[in-house]
Amino acid sequence: MKDLVRKILKGDSAAIAKGISLVENNADETQMLMKEIFPYTGDSTIIGITGAPGTGKSTLVDQMIDALIEKNRKIGIIAVDPSSPFTGGAILGDRIRMMRHSVHPDVFIRSMATRGHLGGLAKASGEALFILDASGKDCLLVETVGVGQDEIEVVKLADVIIVVLIPGSGDEIQIFKAGIMEIADIFVINKADSPGAEKTERQIKAMLDIGKKDETAPPVLKTVATEGHGINRLIERIDTIISFREEETHVERRKKRISYLLREILNERLFREAMKSVQDVDFDECVDRIYDHTSDPYTIADQIIDSLAKKV
Amino acid sequence: MKDLVRKILKGDSAAIAKGISLVENNADETQMLMKEIFPYTGDSTIIGITGAPGTGKSTLVDQMIDALIEKNRKIGIIAVDPSSPFTGGAILGDRIRMMRHSVHPDVFIRSMATRGHLGGLAKASGEALFILDASGKDCLLVETVGVGQDEIEVVKLADVIIVVLIPGSGDEIQIFKAGIMEIADIFVINKADSPGAEKTERQIKAMLDIGKKDETAPPVLKTVATEGHGINRLIERIDTIISFREEETHVERRKKRISYLLREILNERLFREAMKSVQDVDFDECVDRIYDHTSDPYTIADQIIDSLAKKV
Repeated sequence: MKDLVRKILKGDSAAIAKGISLVENNADETQMLMKEIFPYTGDSTIIGITGAPGTGKSTLVDQMIDALIEKNRKIGIIAVDPSSPFTGGAILGDRIRMMRHSVHPDVFIRSMATRGHLGGLAKASGEALFILDASGKDCLLVETVGVGQDEIEVVKLADVIIVVLIPGSGDEIQIFKAGIMEIADIFVINKADSPGAEKTERQIKAMLDIGKKDETAPPVLKTVATEGHGINRLIERIDTIISFREEETHVERRKKRISYLLREILNERLFREAMKSVQDVDFDECVDRIYDHTSDPYTIADQIIDSLAKKV
Repeated sequence: MKDLVRKILKGDSAAIAKGISLVENNADETQMLMKEIFPYTGDSTIIGITGAPGTGKSTLVDQMIDALIEKNRKIGIIAVDPSSPFTGGAILGDRIRMMRHSVHPDVFIRSMATRGHLGGLAKASGEALFILDASGKDCLLVETVGVGQDEIEVVKLADVIIVVLIPGSGDEIQIFKAGIMEIADIFVINKADSPGAEKTERQIKAMLDIGKKDETAPPVLKTVATEGHGINRLIERIDTIISFREEETHVERRKKRISYLLREILNERLFREAMKSVQDVDFDECVDRIYDHTSDPYTIADQIIDSLAKKV
């Protein structure tokens, strides 16, 4: 473990990968690892990128990596992908191009599946970010499909949140529906060479007018990620937002992140402890009793909690 | 409470609405209500409907309600909508038309927001379904946007799962990405009068060939919900699936649902109990200590659990 920690702190890619695998499996060693690593976190900037499927987020991230390498930044990427039993894991499809960067010594890319994290996706991705942070990466990108609640929660942990849209991606109500408008620090209209980019821009600005009257509205930028257009301006804008953000706002966001992760960690620990003490409860038998209506889930939950309280 | 239970069991819409509000607010009375109601559940058929935004799920559900009313079914609908602070709640946009049905005495429609359920979306929607089930509705429809993990979990609780797609809704990889292919009992290609419907059908069938070799492949149906085309065939197909399903499969699915809900209920109860006992812990102070690196989330979780164990 000491060796793993030492290697992670040195930025060793194999060690980082091993650390994230421990996190993903929610292994018993995870907690020990995280305790060792935590003191070295807090220096990275976390950039969250979200948007509906098909908006070209991966291509955008791919181009951002290029631009950030040019600026000599050390970069960590967590790409959260919905998983499917058909493919047996996270889908690499449009990740393949991005992965070419992973041979670069200053770039670490990890694809994480949304499913199957025992402690929840937010905890797993939050801990993966701690590891990347401690490893000396100064710029962390988290990419998720921004339609589901879990995925939005993950992106919300970032210092700067980018919401990616495309021209004519349906009427405004669909954007509203995504429930992500209000968390954006920057809007990116990707594929801005397609017809309707101006209309989409006007729609976003109109909505911002309604929603955020007294605040400074987030900028709306246009990119054509496949051509690399607008990427440098996006990076500059991110840097500007970070540099000019009031200390107070920055601290508040970080504390919100800590608070959220603490709750997730606590929640998972409590459930795990309870399940340990509950090992003599026959869960299947409980389900059978509920199924044939000789009991109900609430009474059984009461009984389990009572028996727990007696044991501790 | 006795009065509320009695009215719910009689199918009184105002009482059902009040019951679901208790569930949504995760009020202290919820548990009492659910214990009273649970013995009367288990008779409804639950139909889950999911798909990406813009596939016309709401219009489809609207038409299904029409068709089910004609068959004298009693219908309950839970429509799960991503919420947005811009609108201050669930978005009603394309719900407005559906709501016209809610004046019908045999139809109950409720829109639930994905966010802000203290015990989680799955628990809240599962409990709302218990209430509708006990109220005598024989057909329950649950509609969600099937891209997020939480939303998929909700739909997975159904007896029959319908995945809605539209022609040319992007290349196959996007469908894969949704991670919902493998849970479908029926595929519906809505807007089937648009170009590419046949191609989409072929793509789905090709994928099913890869994924489900030894099982009976789910049917692929075409609808034009705006015109009401294909709706009756869809309803018949649902009925057929339920009628011809092996008893064993049916019981297994129901037990899976019970098992999932029991875990959610237990998880929420545990966390709530813990939080009660933990009231003297200053959560903000913990966050501050983590922020300035004098402690870490894992050590603090340890301390909270230790102090809990001492108290019980």
